[in-house]
Amino acid sequence: MIRGEPVKLMQVSDPVAVLNLIKEEFKALPAETLAIELAGGRYLAGDLKSFEDVPGFNRSTVDGYAVAARESFGAGESVPAMFELAGEVLMGKSAPSIRPGQCRLVHTGGMLPENTDAVVMAEDTEVSGNLVNSFKQLAPGENVIRRGEDLKAGTTALEAGQLLRAPEIGLLASIGITAVAVHRQPQIGFFSSGDELVAYSSRQLEAGQIRDSNAPAISYLARQYGAGFKYGGILPDDFAVFLEKSRAILEEVDFLVFSGGSSVGSRDFTARTMQELGKPGLLVEGIAIQPGKPTLLAKCNDKPVLGLPGHPISALNIFSIFGRAIIDRLAGRLTERLMPTLSATLARNVASRTGRTDYVRVKLKREETSGELTAVPVFGRSGMLRTLAEADGLLVVPPEKEGLSAGEQVEVYLWE
Amino acid sequence: MIRGEPVKLMQVSDPVAVLNLIKEEFKALPAETLAIELAGGRYLAGDLKSFEDVPGFNRSTVDGYAVAARESFGAGESVPAMFELAGEVLMGKSAPSIRPGQCRLVHTGGMLPENTDAVVMAEDTEVSGNLVNSFKQLAPGENVIRRGEDLKAGTTALEAGQLLRAPEIGLLASIGITAVAVHRQPQIGFFSSGDELVAYSSRQLEAGQIRDSNAPAISYLARQYGAGFKYGGILPDDFAVFLEKSRAILEEVDFLVFSGGSSVGSRDFTARTMQELGKPGLLVEGIAIQPGKPTLLAKCNDKPVLGLPGHPISALNIFSIFGRAIIDRLAGRLTERLMPTLSATLARNVASRTGRTDYVRVKLKREETSGELTAVPVFGRSGMLRTLAEADGLLVVPPEKEGLSAGEQVEVYLWE
Repeated sequence: MIRGEPVKLMQVSDPVAVLNLIKEEFKALPAETLAIELAGGRYLAGDLKSFEDVPGFNRSTVDGYAVAARESFGAGESVPAMFELAGEVLMGKSAPSIRPGQCRLVHTGGMLPENTDAVVMAEDTEVSGNLVNSFKQLAPGENVIRRGEDLKAGTTALEAGQLLRAPEIGLLASIGITAVAVHRQPQIGFFSSGDELVAYSSRQLEAGQIRDSNAPAISYLARQYGAGFKYGGILPDDFAVFLEKSRAILEEVDFLVFSGGSSVGSRDFTARTMQELGKPGLLVEGIAIQPGKPTLLAKCNDKPVLGLPGHPISALNIFSIFGRAIIDRLAGRLTERLMPTLSATLARNVASRTGRTDYVRVKLKREETSGELTAVPVFGRSGMLRTLAEADGLLVVPPEKEGLSAGEQVEVYLWE
Repeated sequence: MIRGEPVKLMQVSDPVAVLNLIKEEFKALPAETLAIELAGGRYLAGDLKSFEDVPGFNRSTVDGYAVAARESFGAGESVPAMFELAGEVLMGKSAPSIRPGQCRLVHTGGMLPENTDAVVMAEDTEVSGNLVNSFKQLAPGENVIRRGEDLKAGTTALEAGQLLRAPEIGLLASIGITAVAVHRQPQIGFFSSGDELVAYSSRQLEAGQIRDSNAPAISYLARQYGAGFKYGGILPDDFAVFLEKSRAILEEVDFLVFSGGSSVGSRDFTARTMQELGKPGLLVEGIAIQPGKPTLLAKCNDKPVLGLPGHPISALNIFSIFGRAIIDRLAGRLTERLMPTLSATLARNVASRTGRTDYVRVKLKREETSGELTAVPVFGRSGMLRTLAEADGLLVVPPEKEGLSAGEQVEVYLWE
């Protein structure tokens, strides 16, 4: 007499170990050259040198009068230094030089005349006819950014692996670099599986059927995380079809994702496919995380293959942690992704099992009197998407904890 | 004798008051209907009801045997309850009913037969031939999600103003809603100004010229924040052209942004344009914030018009706070945008002036021994983009503080 069905024992991995494995096993995709308007969110494939000094000329940081600083020595509130106004520096134009004892009106961002090295702010002067009195003694370089102070021609402006955010795009534009070599954007191939699934566009469901909601949800997450998404459809519970379709799409994409297979049978299809799709095959069978334990990770022909649990909340949780880590790796991110949080007071006790990292859905409420945030766990026996839609974010119960108590200060990861 | 140039006094506004003004003065754009694949990141224009029960049938949450719970009463480790195995519930198929004393094999997500109300997990049973012994007594509803438990037909699935994130897209897909009414995406019109500016694609600069780096940087931020971006070009310092071009683009967009005008003259052009472009005109002339004080905000023909300082770091800082708040308002966001942070130890003293909210650029470093984060202020007299590119984020010195001390615990907003 056998007790129960033959249950395959799961070799559950530690989530941190899985993240390290992702870093070790996979590498950044090849580089491509993109116009900077299209390169936002990408990672640089190599160091970038500036061909120019930045700024390209000595610039004023204020509205005022360009002078030779030494000619202001000794000036003060009672004894102004007097300059003859030689005219104005026009914006975007070369600054005409001046003679000793002269100054020139200059605007913020304007060029300094060759023989000047400081700018007295307009509010520190009095103007009378063509005479300018400075009530301030200036140090050489005062209110001036010197040519090349920000960046010297030939030096590195940005390093390989740098994420191109708005400041980097601005920096590139400012030094006249209009195209850059960045790592290719990871392309994800995605299959759903399970005989109960039908296309989410199905109007009427037959008894026992559910719509494939993971495809559009994961598609949106993938695009948010900077990946392309190719939907392969719903795989039938037929191993030959499973393998054939997976083989075909793996050729076209950088990262293959299976969703479904929360039941033992369906999980086995995914696991077998991962073993036959390419070497070395399965790396991880189960992660000590909740929700999302029955997760599979494989490497097939150097490409990552992730098997998400079919349960929508588990699938989203796993993809947002491990799917994102894989995308980051392929996209060329070199540094740790820091995850900012919101501090909140926990409204209710949260139970958890030690040895497992628990992700708890919470709704955040701003207390009217104190202005503090309260984190209210969103329970729901069903654990369906509705509870995740009600939640603003997640809090993490680390494996060493047996749960969290009401009133505790917790850190919440926002889901946006 | 006049002291300095005629300086227009700036009526500096409190940043919180400006954010409240944005909420009061502007409203959400009209709705449009979008396929859910395209609606991620948008805000719902109205409540959304479900037309179906979710789930649509009583579902098993485990792999096991569906039974009538009352027939398991009294069962335990030593006295199993015995059931005749009537067969399997096929995934995606209607579950055939069973007779008293029978059970039916059911997989996770499978439908329960009509006359069953609980599922005994496979690991709590022993199977011998066509007999299944349950070593567990089951409560009605155990391991089952009942039809409509998540969402009843006719009840509200998502409320107006809800941001469509991955969970919401999944939820919509699961209830067969393939298109939704969301607020239109704000379209931004953008002008740079200043005679020193040349297109950032310019290869060679003349003396005194700089490239217009704000256009591509703000364009990327705008798209990150969910807005469209239409570049209007660089405006010459000619008021007639300024007004004419602004009038033309304001017709086509929902939100007009000017960059440039850090000098008094250029700021005046922007301010005058804002006054003449439409009623009521200028609302804010200067915000008590650093960097970014010389910011202008107007309302012209019900449309927001923002005047960014020309300085790249100021422009990015102001757009990321107030530009984003305007985009959120137009896009239909109803709730406060929560801003998660990273806790870090400040490495150096930071000076600040009271009465002003200071944004300080910091680089984050992970201490090898403690694993704690240290926030190192990225100074740079020039304040050019390079220092922002070196920074991981910003920390805020509130107006009531005179600065922050080395060793203090600070909250850092990540720039990604």
